[in-house]
Amino acid sequence: MVKKKVLILGGDGYLGWPTAMYFSRKGHDVAVVDNFIKRQWEAEVEAEPLIPIPSLQQRIRIWKQATGKKIRMYVGNLAHERFVARIFRDFKPDVIIHYGEQPSAPFSMMGNERTNETQINNVVGTLNVIYSMKRSTPEAHLIKLGTMGEYGTPNIDIEEGWITITHKGRKDRMLFPKKPGSFYHLSKVHDSNNLEFACRVWGLRVTDLNQGVVYGMETEETKLADGLHTSFHYDDIFGTALNRFCVQAVAGVPITPYGKGGQKRGFLNIVDTLRCVELAALHPAKKGEFRVFNQFTEVFSIRELAEKVKSAAADMGIRAKIRHVRNPRTELEQHYYNPVHRALPKLGLKPHLLSDVLVESMLAKIIEHKDLINEEIIMPRVLWVSKTE
Amino acid sequence: MVKKKVLILGGDGYLGWPTAMYFSRKGHDVAVVDNFIKRQWEAEVEAEPLIPIPSLQQRIRIWKQATGKKIRMYVGNLAHERFVARIFRDFKPDVIIHYGEQPSAPFSMMGNERTNETQINNVVGTLNVIYSMKRSTPEAHLIKLGTMGEYGTPNIDIEEGWITITHKGRKDRMLFPKKPGSFYHLSKVHDSNNLEFACRVWGLRVTDLNQGVVYGMETEETKLADGLHTSFHYDDIFGTALNRFCVQAVAGVPITPYGKGGQKRGFLNIVDTLRCVELAALHPAKKGEFRVFNQFTEVFSIRELAEKVKSAAADMGIRAKIRHVRNPRTELEQHYYNPVHRALPKLGLKPHLLSDVLVESMLAKIIEHKDLINEEIIMPRVLWVSKTE
Repeated sequence: MVKKKVLILGGDGYLGWPTAMYFSRKGHDVAVVDNFIKRQWEAEVEAEPLIPIPSLQQRIRIWKQATGKKIRMYVGNLAHERFVARIFRDFKPDVIIHYGEQPSAPFSMMGNERTNETQINNVVGTLNVIYSMKRSTPEAHLIKLGTMGEYGTPNIDIEEGWITITHKGRKDRMLFPKKPGSFYHLSKVHDSNNLEFACRVWGLRVTDLNQGVVYGMETEETKLADGLHTSFHYDDIFGTALNRFCVQAVAGVPITPYGKGGQKRGFLNIVDTLRCVELAALHPAKKGEFRVFNQFTEVFSIRELAEKVKSAAADMGIRAKIRHVRNPRTELEQHYYNPVHRALPKLGLKPHLLSDVLVESMLAKIIEHKDLINEEIIMPRVLWVSKTE
Repeated sequence: MVKKKVLILGGDGYLGWPTAMYFSRKGHDVAVVDNFIKRQWEAEVEAEPLIPIPSLQQRIRIWKQATGKKIRMYVGNLAHERFVARIFRDFKPDVIIHYGEQPSAPFSMMGNERTNETQINNVVGTLNVIYSMKRSTPEAHLIKLGTMGEYGTPNIDIEEGWITITHKGRKDRMLFPKKPGSFYHLSKVHDSNNLEFACRVWGLRVTDLNQGVVYGMETEETKLADGLHTSFHYDDIFGTALNRFCVQAVAGVPITPYGKGGQKRGFLNIVDTLRCVELAALHPAKKGEFRVFNQFTEVFSIRELAEKVKSAAADMGIRAKIRHVRNPRTELEQHYYNPVHRALPKLGLKPHLLSDVLVESMLAKIIEHKDLINEEIIMPRVLWVSKTE
């Protein structure tokens, strides 16, 4: 494979760090960017990962010791134009993988300030990236992490970003209309709209990955040395349903799906995320192309997920209970859901599906660190509609 | 008519000030908000209005003298959460008319900083408004100025904000997909998406007015006293095509449509803008309704507009020439364009169409102030695709 310069924005995060190791191990020249604001947000809302994470500097050092490979680091804020411009002038990436955004729906719904913070951070960061690409690396390929949540749950099949609409006897290929469920999801919709424009007008190359919910704690690379693990969140703000349910089972408290649990979502294993991003990088978007992939491998309802955890736990001798709680979000709990996801399998993706074995390995890992579980951060603290604002 | 508390955001602007006088004259309790940043931007890019505009304080004083009516004023930045929250707590508006945004496509395309400034100012201002509504005036009606430019020029008929899509045998009513032509237009798309969410989740009432290009220098109220006139921009940044063409005719320089001039747009007279906003206010959106009106009365191509000015000028003894110049924007110059605009006429709008008489009255007004014309600010300075940025 041709060696590429790969710039990873948000390189300290749950996906950013494993992605950095993955590309580094394959021999690419990797640089990571982060300002560690996510760690600060975690501290502010009391949502630390189950197993403490060494600093990024330390992780890069451990990686070098374990593999002999160097990862470069830029520390700073993507919302600062000149910082971003400097990275692009200096590193001149061939591929940019952009995870550098505030990633939580509940965080974005905590109030006026958090909403603004989320939308400014995400939208302005991405604007600075495309301006820097235009200026310094107009042929580079931006791989931008979006989310399946941008689409919401429409009553028609969800296509991959674009849809051909026939209306009153005429036809056009248009962006798929979106109906997202939080100000965080909206920030990603804004990004997508800005990016489509940048491709159309400036001729940039962009792949927008509308990703499902990622699960899994390990990749080939996290296992290479102690301290290379990635963050595992099980709280109500940064944790996702499967993580929360596993921790609840281990902690001996009820598994708590929100509402009826009939909400369906796309899911994928973290090792598939890495492969999807790699496939996108190996097959870049064409000049001026705004390409969208729906990146997930399976659809489950939240109730099904709870049942899976309960049954895997039972196999390990843990008797877990399921208790439905009032849904803090405003969302449909019974709905049609049939999103297309053909592009990535066509490029070669071989999915790692969610097996009992995987859930059991997550449970086993959590059991190892059972004493670190903080039960108080699991139940929902942020309401989509509240009286107090 | 029931007397209402009307809050006008951007009350110092081309439309904001005439709207304030219009509602004040009808007996409503009017408050205006502005931080005069638009005047600063005008100074920064050398784009002052043809006829100087007294300060907002002075205009409010003149209005009081002329009519006995008081207009309240709040000075501050809509992007500051606490400033906006304070206004809503203090004034408790029934209707909010939101013009308080950076209104220029070329300004938003001047570079990275201007793009960020435009999107932050517009998106965060609107977020602060909806949070303040939710907190202090959940039953109030927000009338938000959007633009027809949000839609771009799709190959299908443009519906009013929503479209029912039939796809693979299923159906849903969805937001009309948009393909805007600048980062300014994108900021309004972001607003629309945020607003739809706020209606859906918080039950707010919002009318999004996707307005065409407004022309005209006078309303019933601007004539009531000296100093009550509104701003007339003819420069490349804040001026619109009709204004530029009229000034070019008077200045004796060629009228310069961009490119082929086959670009079609919706237009309306400023007096119709006032009536449209009033009709929206009189017939508020329902609780939880995100309502979109396409607000224009006629469609012209830019070439037709140039011809109209040339012919009206000829009637006044002015021989104007038309010279097509290279289009600084990236846009289709020949395209299908058939936007629906039924909602406002159904509520009672009686359009004032663009007549020779109107163009001649604009020309006459410009001739009065001919010595103030600065020819150097008319030709395009901002390119959508340039080599230097």
